[in-house]
Amino acid sequence: MQKFIGYRCSVCGTEYPPGDVTYTCPKDGGNLDVLLDYPALRDLPRENLVVDGEPSLWRYLPLLPVSRMVGAGTPIRAAGWTPTYSPPQLKESLGLTKLWVKDESPNPSASFKDRASALLVARAREIGAEVIVTASTGNAGAALAGMAAAVGHKSVIFAPKSAPPAKIAQLRVYGATVILVDDNYDAAFQLSLQATEEFGWYNRNTGYNPFTAEGKKTAAFEIWETVLEANDFERPACIFISVGDGNIISGIHKGFKDLYEIGQLKHMPRIFGCQSTGSAAIANAYAAGDEDITAVAADTLADSISVNLPSDGLRALRAATQTDGAYIAVEDSAILEAITDLGRVGIFAEPAAAASYAGLKKALDDGLVTPQDPVIVLNTGSGLKDVDAAMQAAGQAPVIEPSLDAVKELGVLGGW
Amino acid sequence: MQKFIGYRCSVCGTEYPPGDVTYTCPKDGGNLDVLLDYPALRDLPRENLVVDGEPSLWRYLPLLPVSRMVGAGTPIRAAGWTPTYSPPQLKESLGLTKLWVKDESPNPSASFKDRASALLVARAREIGAEVIVTASTGNAGAALAGMAAAVGHKSVIFAPKSAPPAKIAQLRVYGATVILVDDNYDAAFQLSLQATEEFGWYNRNTGYNPFTAEGKKTAAFEIWETVLEANDFERPACIFISVGDGNIISGIHKGFKDLYEIGQLKHMPRIFGCQSTGSAAIANAYAAGDEDITAVAADTLADSISVNLPSDGLRALRAATQTDGAYIAVEDSAILEAITDLGRVGIFAEPAAAASYAGLKKALDDGLVTPQDPVIVLNTGSGLKDVDAAMQAAGQAPVIEPSLDAVKELGVLGGW
Repeated sequence: MQKFIGYRCSVCGTEYPPGDVTYTCPKDGGNLDVLLDYPALRDLPRENLVVDGEPSLWRYLPLLPVSRMVGAGTPIRAAGWTPTYSPPQLKESLGLTKLWVKDESPNPSASFKDRASALLVARAREIGAEVIVTASTGNAGAALAGMAAAVGHKSVIFAPKSAPPAKIAQLRVYGATVILVDDNYDAAFQLSLQATEEFGWYNRNTGYNPFTAEGKKTAAFEIWETVLEANDFERPACIFISVGDGNIISGIHKGFKDLYEIGQLKHMPRIFGCQSTGSAAIANAYAAGDEDITAVAADTLADSISVNLPSDGLRALRAATQTDGAYIAVEDSAILEAITDLGRVGIFAEPAAAASYAGLKKALDDGLVTPQDPVIVLNTGSGLKDVDAAMQAAGQAPVIEPSLDAVKELGVLGGW
Repeated sequence: MQKFIGYRCSVCGTEYPPGDVTYTCPKDGGNLDVLLDYPALRDLPRENLVVDGEPSLWRYLPLLPVSRMVGAGTPIRAAGWTPTYSPPQLKESLGLTKLWVKDESPNPSASFKDRASALLVARAREIGAEVIVTASTGNAGAALAGMAAAVGHKSVIFAPKSAPPAKIAQLRVYGATVILVDDNYDAAFQLSLQATEEFGWYNRNTGYNPFTAEGKKTAAFEIWETVLEANDFERPACIFISVGDGNIISGIHKGFKDLYEIGQLKHMPRIFGCQSTGSAAIANAYAAGDEDITAVAADTLADSISVNLPSDGLRALRAATQTDGAYIAVEDSAILEAITDLGRVGIFAEPAAAASYAGLKKALDDGLVTPQDPVIVLNTGSGLKDVDAAMQAAGQAPVIEPSLDAVKELGVLGGW
């Protein structure tokens, strides 16, 4: 079955057959949505939509714009199908009865971005691209490097010279060709585009290649299977997602749209985008009530969502406005607090990932969601990705002489 | 069914009923093996040994010395059931046809140690212990803190003041009470024992509490289900395991012994312990051909297996000698090389975890295993646990001006 039938520009609506474009709209540079053959998929029985027993995002192959799974026996085949928790302590402290946290840290490179990179690598294989390139300072680069390595594809990562050495190390351990650019991220991004054209590489840049959102939409499918379908709620679920460049929230919105269009969803979930007040370009536009997104000078400790001008801003904004959701901006101090809130139930999140939980707390305070609403929060990356922030959130531990008396003097027992 | 019927001392062989002892042998301080009712388990049909459809180590509840699963909807219920890869590139480079790498980094706190801590917490609940304490500088402490947090148990971690701040941060984010001791690890260990007695806490110390090995044995069960049972090899599989204090290898040996005793294994696997030459107390005893393990002054970059005198050394030694396995010592340089070997196929290992792969390479060179042997290598922890080592393994990336000419001058394309 040929389910992948083309692209549609998210700005001008022009449609293109699969072979006519590769990245953005030739007319206006708008991000392209992948078009699936919804009528054909609507006729499929439920068991033909999901590959039962496949414990990875590849279980949704019938809804993905590639024709086959790749990398049997390698980490690319282990991306996705992450656990979803329902921590009783968080429910109690928030006064919610229906709360889930989807934890993306068990992905092979420890972040949500493996979903996009897994699909990108499968697409690269289908179109015969040997080298995949991206500009990145963090999780997207690590995900591409890891997923490409799994199946022996070459990857090239352009990063600004200022990128954290630890993140560069992860890229290099995966065998990526890492090129540090003596300039900022925008320059690395532009250079990756030039290299793509010059060398015939395949470009994974987020908010540029339409397949990243198609990989990310698999998280929506998992929420559907493990939470929505399993519970059959009377009201729409509320999904809280941290937002930087906007491609994760766009991808998840696309996933729910796919499901809705093929008749698998009773309600469209309400989608809430959570940004740091220090990097709130989309939240600003939402508050102003228009679709013009203006660049900010981003300044937040949540580096994975620190963005001046989101590359997928328009679709990210519409993910909220088209679903009766909202955008929420939270202070960095609230993000640090959310790290410890999640940590106290055994979930270790990086700052960008904890922004979603901070956003939920604010949404409850503001009455945007009620205690009756089913709520799902995404933890998009492991706290091990940014231990400096964890140290800032957790504070110092006391130092004592090695004696029982010193333990007693600490008074740690009193509180129990 | 009462399958947990007592303990047997690994040194003197004395047996004790479940209620008579808690930690080590009262006679000689030897580590205790948990005794299961093998005759009763041997009569069980296969489907009564494994909880089908449970995607965690709790699928083996019928073979664990606790009566019920704990923490539904929390990370403790997600420990174990980790992916096993079979990377074609590694097979080719080693000349092996049957090779698997079991990757423990997707565990909730990103290391193998979650297996032990999950079972410990379940045991604590059964005996009514509210506070669990351990001495640790790293993965064991993080695992206890995370698993205890998941179900609202209190944890106390004694660590030497010199412990890496990043690891302390992970402990504190999980809400553990972290007490830094102004002395070395041995002093922290002793203080944890005193506090256990004084305050009635439950002590998780590795090589001391017999339940840690029972949690760790679940990795053997997973290897059995996903590799051994699925392939029905004609010859024993060879399992490569990094060894520090010796409790992981003891636990995995125990798991295979359980399976063998209840009639589920055709061959007992051969177990190979891999140590750094800088921390080779058990490998030294193996080479000398006796069971007396002498302390070393440990000095290796693989901090998770850096141990002067292994707390579970005797059982760890026998895991190899009783299975026709061996002990192998590898240089730190070989460990760093193994990090990049694994990274190149998308598996990011910390140094202690990569020692097992370095050990396999040496075992092949030395003729201890042959290309016909089925081989399974354990990656016991995520490379994100020690990014400094990753940087040392991966080396520097080049810095260029942001121009295509500079990319071309790098010559990165020539090699492709």
